[in-house]
Amino acid sequence: MKITPVKGASDYLPNQARVRDFLQEKILETYRAAGFERIYTPIIEDIENLDKSDGGENLALIFKIMKRGEKLEKALAEGGELCDMGLRYDLTLPLTRYYANNRASLMSPFKVIQTDRVYRAERPQKGRLREFVQCDIDIIGDESRTAELELILTTAKALRAVGLDNFTVKINDRRLLRALLIGLGFAEDSLDGVCVALDKLDKIGAGGVASEMLEKGCPEAAVRGLGALLTEGAGLEAVKARVDCEAVSDLEFIMDSIAEAGGVDIEFDLSLVRGQGYYTATVFEVVSSDFRGAIAGGGRYDRLIGKFIGEDVPAVGFSIGFERIAAILTEKGLGAAAGRPRLAVIYEEKDFVRANAYAEERRADCDVTLIERPKKLGKLLNRLEEQGFAAFYVVGWEETEPKPLGDRS
Amino acid sequence: MKITPVKGASDYLPNQARVRDFLQEKILETYRAAGFERIYTPIIEDIENLDKSDGGENLALIFKIMKRGEKLEKALAEGGELCDMGLRYDLTLPLTRYYANNRASLMSPFKVIQTDRVYRAERPQKGRLREFVQCDIDIIGDESRTAELELILTTAKALRAVGLDNFTVKINDRRLLRALLIGLGFAEDSLDGVCVALDKLDKIGAGGVASEMLEKGCPEAAVRGLGALLTEGAGLEAVKARVDCEAVSDLEFIMDSIAEAGGVDIEFDLSLVRGQGYYTATVFEVVSSDFRGAIAGGGRYDRLIGKFIGEDVPAVGFSIGFERIAAILTEKGLGAAAGRPRLAVIYEEKDFVRANAYAEERRADCDVTLIERPKKLGKLLNRLEEQGFAAFYVVGWEETEPKPLGDRS
Repeated sequence: MKITPVKGASDYLPNQARVRDFLQEKILETYRAAGFERIYTPIIEDIENLDKSDGGENLALIFKIMKRGEKLEKALAEGGELCDMGLRYDLTLPLTRYYANNRASLMSPFKVIQTDRVYRAERPQKGRLREFVQCDIDIIGDESRTAELELILTTAKALRAVGLDNFTVKINDRRLLRALLIGLGFAEDSLDGVCVALDKLDKIGAGGVASEMLEKGCPEAAVRGLGALLTEGAGLEAVKARVDCEAVSDLEFIMDSIAEAGGVDIEFDLSLVRGQGYYTATVFEVVSSDFRGAIAGGGRYDRLIGKFIGEDVPAVGFSIGFERIAAILTEKGLGAAAGRPRLAVIYEEKDFVRANAYAEERRADCDVTLIERPKKLGKLLNRLEEQGFAAFYVVGWEETEPKPLGDRS
Repeated sequence: MKITPVKGASDYLPNQARVRDFLQEKILETYRAAGFERIYTPIIEDIENLDKSDGGENLALIFKIMKRGEKLEKALAEGGELCDMGLRYDLTLPLTRYYANNRASLMSPFKVIQTDRVYRAERPQKGRLREFVQCDIDIIGDESRTAELELILTTAKALRAVGLDNFTVKINDRRLLRALLIGLGFAEDSLDGVCVALDKLDKIGAGGVASEMLEKGCPEAAVRGLGALLTEGAGLEAVKARVDCEAVSDLEFIMDSIAEAGGVDIEFDLSLVRGQGYYTATVFEVVSSDFRGAIAGGGRYDRLIGKFIGEDVPAVGFSIGFERIAAILTEKGLGAAAGRPRLAVIYEEKDFVRANAYAEERRADCDVTLIERPKKLGKLLNRLEEQGFAAFYVVGWEETEPKPLGDRS
């Protein structure tokens, strides 16, 4: 038998699991305190729902589940579809299906938490997971700009709750970006391609973006105009002078309100696109000078749910990069420290009941494990220290207090 | 698109999710306090590991994941194996693989918690889930009978923590049962079949069990002897008079220690078998006069890990019936009550920042959601009450305290 996990999936050791649980618990606590409600959706989805969804590149990465029994035999014999289900590649598709299925029983607006596993058949390579956790909040059924405010304030609070402080929220609006690009002279039917190029600004720089746009046949004047705005780091005021659309006043309301609420840095970023095709208006992400790339991202997707229920329902979501942050916290050595302090109570078999009674008393304040005394006590104590235990106690000692592990001689 | 979840999988509404989170959190809290450490293993496993495992009937219920890309094309062209992975059907197989893979980094004995999803392609029918949560604790690398004591005391504590009180732990030992059956005159190679019949005692009664054994060709005297012991509800003393094996003193030690520790009812049950083929010694389950069937079960499986690493490692586990208990608690209406009390703060858009500041102050004590004031306030308040909110507050009120929802007129 193979003892390693399948490619792209991980076994998490206790200290790693402790970081993941700490992270999830802190995030959930913050989300719940802000009135968001957790739901669970299945990891397995109907294959047609997945195949027909708005998943872009992810559609090529779906793990498919084979039919079983007679249906499989029939499909094999007749050359039909071999699969009837697949593993979800994100949490947004299951959420939209869930909302369509359950909306009569849900609060409106529906403020929802999902933190759960998703699957993508990525080409195996270092750090590229095939099974990973996403952590999303969404507000469904609220067209007001206050939905964005709630998501931004709550996500910022969650990040601070897990110990991240030095970050900025960047915001843009797809409507604004489109109006500006058209004003600069880009053709309307080229905008998707222009946005794809713009999205690479971080990776290939302004020069690379301009070359790519020119290769795609965009007008030189438009490319130069956009390049100038990007180079000068045009703020909302500069953009406002060029375009007149509702997105401007929405962005002003959001940025002013966040400033008034205090505690969160927010800035307009004209170059912010976000990859997903389904965003219709605001897009935002969280960046930190301590790490490369975004640690959270989201936006408004007012037309996705309509695909299920035939009528558009406004929706906006914000997703925290769970795996990213878990890796950062694990590197910082949080594992052994997360959770309550741990105490080992060491006993001989005949003393089990006494040892258990001692442990029970201590369990109000710490996690207490019972360990039968091995021949080599010193070796056990070294192991306990290595694993992050705070203290130990040997049943039969005269004193009643445990001894700190760093402190023995 | 299909808006319902796939067959045998569930969408959990917020109140249902609240019960599941409450249940899981209480259980985890108890397990961790007792020194057990949570781990995570992947939901997807190598298909050969699953197919060759000790899963009995579950092997026919594995959801299989298709190969992808060139490997799939090759398999289709050459008539080879179409799948390379599958969804796990329990948590014990992944745990044994995990232990084999990581044992150098783990505490010994390794006290481990797993509470996570498993998958079985059961024939769809009411109440039969294909995606469900199992909740296990195991102790690996401890041959001592104190491992059983820890599992029993900790599981009982977890059940009490979620509000179940009226239960009894039943215990037996496969070694004892085998020795007794051989002493009664059953052939050694018939014991597996005899145990299968005995396991049905609850369903088909002593008469049914006897008929099945006779049909299988067991000696009449042996069947009659066993029947007499079952009818008289033979205790450990009565059995002890007939067999002489180590299991007797182990059971006595366990039962005496549990009695001495206090607070948990434990009784010997000669008819207790537990289905899994891999148990080698003690088996136990928890029953309650309030519900039919077991609410937890487990036992010692000293030879399962050896299949991965070529050397036997003692192991013993106890599993709580998570879905069973979640259903019981949901029926009792725990959903709306679980978690912190919920407060709704109702505001108009211009007052968002003020509303948010009021909400922040209250979030120390309760979960607070912001809701923009709709045209029909009364309808909203009814909805809030329905959903289990405790109170509401309208920004702009003269008073500063929220108003209980049950209390308006």
